[in-house]
Amino acid sequence: MPSDLMREIEKIIAGVRPLDSDAMEMARARVDGLVKPPGSLGKLEDIAVTLAGIGGAPYYDAGRRCVIVMSSDNGVVEEGVASAPQAVTYAQTLNFIYGITGVSVLAKQFNADLIVVDVGVNADIDHPQIKNRKIRKSTWNIAKGAAMTREEAERAVLTGIETAAEAADAGYTLLGAGEMGIGNTTTSSAVLCALTGIPAEQSAGKGAGLKEEAYMRKINVIRTALDVNKPDPGDPIDALAKVGGFDIAALAGVYIGGAYKRVPVVIDGFISMVAALAAARICPAAKDYMFASHASFEQGYAHAAKALGAEPCLRLDMRLGEGSGCPIMFAVIDAACAMIRNMGTFEQANIGEEYLEEVRDGDSFTVTGKEQKV
Amino acid sequence: MPSDLMREIEKIIAGVRPLDSDAMEMARARVDGLVKPPGSLGKLEDIAVTLAGIGGAPYYDAGRRCVIVMSSDNGVVEEGVASAPQAVTYAQTLNFIYGITGVSVLAKQFNADLIVVDVGVNADIDHPQIKNRKIRKSTWNIAKGAAMTREEAERAVLTGIETAAEAADAGYTLLGAGEMGIGNTTTSSAVLCALTGIPAEQSAGKGAGLKEEAYMRKINVIRTALDVNKPDPGDPIDALAKVGGFDIAALAGVYIGGAYKRVPVVIDGFISMVAALAAARICPAAKDYMFASHASFEQGYAHAAKALGAEPCLRLDMRLGEGSGCPIMFAVIDAACAMIRNMGTFEQANIGEEYLEEVRDGDSFTVTGKEQKV
Repeated sequence: MPSDLMREIEKIIAGVRPLDSDAMEMARARVDGLVKPPGSLGKLEDIAVTLAGIGGAPYYDAGRRCVIVMSSDNGVVEEGVASAPQAVTYAQTLNFIYGITGVSVLAKQFNADLIVVDVGVNADIDHPQIKNRKIRKSTWNIAKGAAMTREEAERAVLTGIETAAEAADAGYTLLGAGEMGIGNTTTSSAVLCALTGIPAEQSAGKGAGLKEEAYMRKINVIRTALDVNKPDPGDPIDALAKVGGFDIAALAGVYIGGAYKRVPVVIDGFISMVAALAAARICPAAKDYMFASHASFEQGYAHAAKALGAEPCLRLDMRLGEGSGCPIMFAVIDAACAMIRNMGTFEQANIGEEYLEEVRDGDSFTVTGKEQKV
Repeated sequence: MPSDLMREIEKIIAGVRPLDSDAMEMARARVDGLVKPPGSLGKLEDIAVTLAGIGGAPYYDAGRRCVIVMSSDNGVVEEGVASAPQAVTYAQTLNFIYGITGVSVLAKQFNADLIVVDVGVNADIDHPQIKNRKIRKSTWNIAKGAAMTREEAERAVLTGIETAAEAADAGYTLLGAGEMGIGNTTTSSAVLCALTGIPAEQSAGKGAGLKEEAYMRKINVIRTALDVNKPDPGDPIDALAKVGGFDIAALAGVYIGGAYKRVPVVIDGFISMVAALAAARICPAAKDYMFASHASFEQGYAHAAKALGAEPCLRLDMRLGEGSGCPIMFAVIDAACAMIRNMGTFEQANIGEEYLEEVRDGDSFTVTGKEQKV
């Protein structure tokens, strides 16, 4: 018997529509008629076509954008798996608002707002610019039992759905999915193991700066968490509840909520990518609304991206989290939107029909010696 | 006996200074003190530090930027190696100015100007916005002999140096290196073979859209060009003269001229990368002023990038040329500049000294159970 919360989530899932194939066809035709060899703008072309499918029209307006940052603490830090003290989660959650963190600065640079949500920071926060959607102060230690109850996991996912939906209702047309939570590379690695079956040593990286001994401890903690909790690989919400965190579960909800509202959501680094994978397992249709930004330096990222079938556009060796890669990807999306909207057609470019025919036929061109007219 | 032109080039080369290591140290200290785990912003950090070395101060102002597009025709098109007729070079050279090409649209999106230079288009061009620095109308066919004389190659390199220097003198602080020239993936592949010794089948790709038969012809043309001309692998200007083009030679000059004026130059795709490699062979110190943008879909790109020791930040499967990847990289550079200038320090972030010490010592942190102060 699904819970009331689960029935709400399922209603949302049922409301996620596939991309608009008519709009995509129109966009593809427009892109192919622009003055360039077909396909030569690579992923920019694919992004433009996908955005058309999302928006239901050839041109998408990605001008109003924000990064949603889910902040939460993780009980597993008591195992010594993080390179920073738990209090950093609280400090940074405020620092997002003060505008001095990585994601704050990059969001501002690329004209994006920040929406900071407390879903489980282990401190009392009362700030008008931080959304209080706290499920509870910190999860429990996954090495000793479940991170949270099933009901809490469902509430966290719904919280993410609601946050994305509120952002869409407020007029945002492009979202980024970021997080803050000391210890959350450990929980993300455990969720990735649960969802894909890869071993802990492939899933776990050195987080924000672990040394060898702590890294070995982290791998063992993930193994223990999987042993103790036995998450059901066929039930992503079970995996989130048992070995995840409020941040990952809420971020998974952001992807689903974005898709429900037909707004694209940009994936940041490792944790954000694991949340995207969980979201796609909960709601496969949401996958089409996701855009991978950068290939995180964390080794688990590549496994998660492969499992999702997502290809990042940026390779910056970043491993900060916070959603810091999203604003840079907004610039790539801007490039795609500018291309389809502003480039000229072959006709406007005064390039002869003979070239077009060559391209259309897929034949090679051989210069005949006669003067070419332009 | 070097020619007068070569003596001018050598004077410029001698004037290219190494990066300012004091400024780089200051920038690195600033970056390491920002509120993030050391190194966690990856290439953004390296870019910021390199820019400090270029500008001689911790903060670099990359706000005034342009893409320099070298347009030229290539005699080798008579071998049937290109998928578009030669007249497209002329048409696109005008279309850059009309604002409808890929690079035009992307430059505008990212607040960059275009500087279009005719160094060898096979048509008369008289347009106030196109710089007439024509060496000659089209090179000769490299499958039958040298593309140009040694003197013409030197003039083309000097033309590029002068164009970059003029841009720097006009106040531009960030340059991009683009090109237009039907047939120039063939000449670039031949230059890459000459400089690195890799075989033609590794160097040549399918350009803007070649089919299999034409691709085999292209490989054979490159082999023939190398056989007929026997370029000296130890003399990059000889390689440019014998199997290159005016566009590649002039672009090589742009990199050298940018370095001479202490202005960073962004590399676009395959042709631009081969020109960068040639520039670094002519003037090794210029390498430090180059930034790779995107990994071109052309297969030779990876070989050229490896030979240069450059790692692109973007992976967009693009293969348009024109300098179209440069403006997107300008946005990545903007991100690096915003980071070093606008992020807060740990002190400003109200994160305790204990964390800093952990990070500095490189130890892992173990939570002690006591309440953390922030």
